[in-house]
Order: sequence, then structure tokens, then C-alpha cells
Amino acid sequence: MKVPLHKKIRADLLEKIKTGEYRENQLIPTELELAERYQVSRPTIRQAVQALVDEGYLEKRKKRGTIVKKPKIQQEFTHVIESFDSEMNRKGIIPKTKILNFLQTTANEEVAENLKLELGERVYKLTRLRYAEEKPIVLVISYIPYKLFPQFQEVDFTKEKMYQVFEDMGHPIRTVTRKLEVIKADETISDLLDIAEDDPLFYFHTQGFSDDHLPIEYSISKYRGDINYFVFELSQ
Amino acid sequence: MKVPLHKKIRADLLEKIKTGEYRENQLIPTELELAERYQVSRPTIRQAVQALVDEGYLEKRKKRGTIVKKPKIQQEFTHVIESFDSEMNRKGIIPKTKILNFLQTTANEEVAENLKLELGERVYKLTRLRYAEEKPIVLVISYIPYKLFPQFQEVDFTKEKMYQVFEDMGHPIRTVTRKLEVIKADETISDLLDIAEDDPLFYFHTQGFSDDHLPIEYSISKYRGDINYFVFELSQ
Repeated sequence: MKVPLHKKIRADLLEKIKTGEYRENQLIPTELELAERYQVSRPTIRQAVQALVDEGYLEKRKKRGTIVKKPKIQQEFTHVIESFDSEMNRKGIIPKTKILNFLQTTANEEVAENLKLELGERVYKLTRLRYAEEKPIVLVISYIPYKLFPQFQEVDFTKEKMYQVFEDMGHPIRTVTRKLEVIKADETISDLLDIAEDDPLFYFHTQGFSDDHLPIEYSISKYRGDINYFVFELSQ
Repeated sequence: MKVPLHKKIRADLLEKIKTGEYRENQLIPTELELAERYQVSRPTIRQAVQALVDEGYLEKRKKRGTIVKKPKIQQEFTHVIESFDSEMNRKGIIPKTKILNFLQTTANEEVAENLKLELGERVYKLTRLRYAEEKPIVLVISYIPYKLFPQFQEVDFTKEKMYQVFEDMGHPIRTVTRKLEVIKADETISDLLDIAEDDPLFYFHTQGFSDDHLPIEYSISKYRGDINYFVFELSQ
């Protein structure tokens, strides 16, 4: 399949941003200059540039030109029940998951309350660090009731989507409640997410429910503040 | 009008939390003890306690009792187009607004872009500090196009609701787009919101549109991270 010119140019410009040849807050060459450099028409350049504007890598400034921005990822964690991987793929971002921990433990008070279990009941605890284009962007700790998923430990969560596994094992997630707070990064999380200590984080507590409001998942997610944002569209 | 007993007891318990007689993370007396103290039935105590649990002032702990929590306010800024005052009133919280600044200025690049104005066009800049029960909880800076509202400067925004004024002046807000990020408090904002420097904040950029997607408002809001949270309910 032939890749359209504007996509090639988009990729080349993105490469220059990523390698630092075009630096943050610096102007990139004008449309005219780029058209000459790549030997293409200005509409083709415009299309490539607009794609990077839409993705947040570039920003147009009135009367000044187009500058390089640190791209932030628009997250839809607050909008749709969708796996991290699917969401990233849909956005054209390559996701990766590293499993930091996957063990069985007993429910403490917080976990028991959120999963409607007795204190001390057995749960899985799965800790995942998730990446977008090789950058760590969120740490997720998930608790899942052992009694609902006796085969859970065998799943390879670097490859499988957790919500897909829930569904395959007979308990599809139907509704989700997320509570959003903000906190500062402590030493551990700053090391994991490659940010400075005390940097602000989005801090989510999620309960996932199957049919009859049966709690399936209780997760705690810490999203890097510097490269994620959320958008809300409201109407009357 | 006679105030029901459970409401009186709720108010008395809240008073004890606020004065510090009942301290954060400390157990309050048991239902039985409270019933004896107030000379009422246990269901009445239960009702009063439950109200404070619902409001976030108390938290029930399995097998241990009920402890005092620092209450957070569930904000619906991400869900509904509603004035701050109406939302707080609906929650039974007394709102207050202090106008820090209300002036006319010219649109810079960011404001011009968001309000679809020319650079340098005249805008109102309204800076409000908003309180819940005497605690500052959000700083809002709003930009409004001068040409749409020549009479705007005369409005008393300690009393009037901005969205009501827009409607009364012929440009009701129909849709709103909010972008949510997190940032650290700088010195100015930490003084205004009565928090420590570098504390995390919810950081919103809002565009409000009237009919035909006409931009009416561009606002920047900084919500205290320690006493606000947002809840999202999702379903498939």
C-alpha cells in the first residue's frame, strides 16, 4: 500500500520533533519553506502540519507561525469504558504494558468495601505500568475477587485486555464509577512515571461492575499530570 | 417550622467536627452512646450520622465504628452546565463569591483564539474567588467579548450568576467544552486558595458557546485539589 505524501511528511516532521531538531516552543519552517524542502504543494504541507496540530505536537500562532508543543494525550478514561490499548490504538499511539506485580493477597478494609467482600477474602492484585510511545503515562493497581476468577493468575496481561478477560470469564463489565482527585507524586511513583517528586497527578479510584451491580474490579490509577488531559463536552 | 431532631443532631455533630472536638481520623461515640447523650432513639442517630457520611464528614469503618474525615466536595463542573452558586445550594453548601478584579482589557493570543476575536479586541476580564462554607475552593478568571455585552461592566457579580446574565442579555450558553489538566499551585494561587505552594490543583480551561457556536466565555479555573473531587459514571 502506498503511503500518501502528507503522511510521510507528517512522520518526518514528527521525527524532527522527537529527536529535538525542532525544539519545544520554537517555530518550525513556514509552509512555503517546507513545500520547497519536500518538493510538494502547500496543501500537502498544510495537511501534514494540521495532523500534528490535531495531535498536539504543533500549535499555530496567529501572525507568528507554527511552534512545537510538548504533546499531551487526550484521555477518555472519564468517558468510555474502553481498554487502554484500544484507546491508544484508536489515537494512533503505540501502547505498552509492563507488569510490575501480579499476586494473590487478602482484601484490606478499602478493598473489601469496594469489592463488597469480607475483610481478608482472597483477591488478585495486579500492578501495571502503561506506556504510550515508550513514555510511562499511568500506573494502575487493580484488585479482583479471587472467587469470581479462579483461572485469573494464568492470564498474560502484557497481551490480554483485562476487560476482555472479565467478559471471556463470564463477568463482563457493564458499568464503571470513577472518582477523580489530584495528588502529588511520591518518590516511588515519580521514579516509575519518570517525573519529579511532588509533580501533580490525576488520581482515579475505579469500581467496575458486572450484571446486578456485582463488583468485579477496584483499581487505583495515577496518571502523569504533564502529558495527559481530559476533555468534557456539555450541552443544555 | 420545626426542625426535625435528626437535623438538629446532624448540625450539632457537624459543629463538633468543625470546632475540632471530634478530630480527623478519630472515632466518634457509638450510636448507643450518642442516643443516650441526645436522649433520642438509635434510628434518629443513624439518620444524622448517615447524612454526615453522605456529605463526606464521617466515614463508617467495618467493625471499628465511625471516624471523622476531611470532607471533600463532589464537583459537577464536568457534568452539567450549572452556576457555582446553584450547584452549591443544591448540595446544601453555602457559596460565596469575592470579585478580585473586573476590568476591560485587550485580547491576547490565547484569549483571541478561544473567543474567535482579533488580537487586541476589547474583552472583559473577571477574576472571582469562590467559596464553599467560607473556604476558598476555586479561582476563576473569565474573559468575555466586549462587543456582545456592552452593559456587562454594570453587573454585580457577587450577586448575579454569569450564565444568567448571558441569557438575560440575549446570548444563553448552549454548549460548553472543558479541558482538564493538573498543575502545581504557585505562590499567588496558594495564598488565594489557602493551600501550600506546589499543592496540586485541578486546572480547567472552559469555552462557553451560544447559538451557532458563538463563543461567549473563555474561563480558566483552578480548583483546590485537597477538597474537591469529580465522579464519573459510565455504562456500556
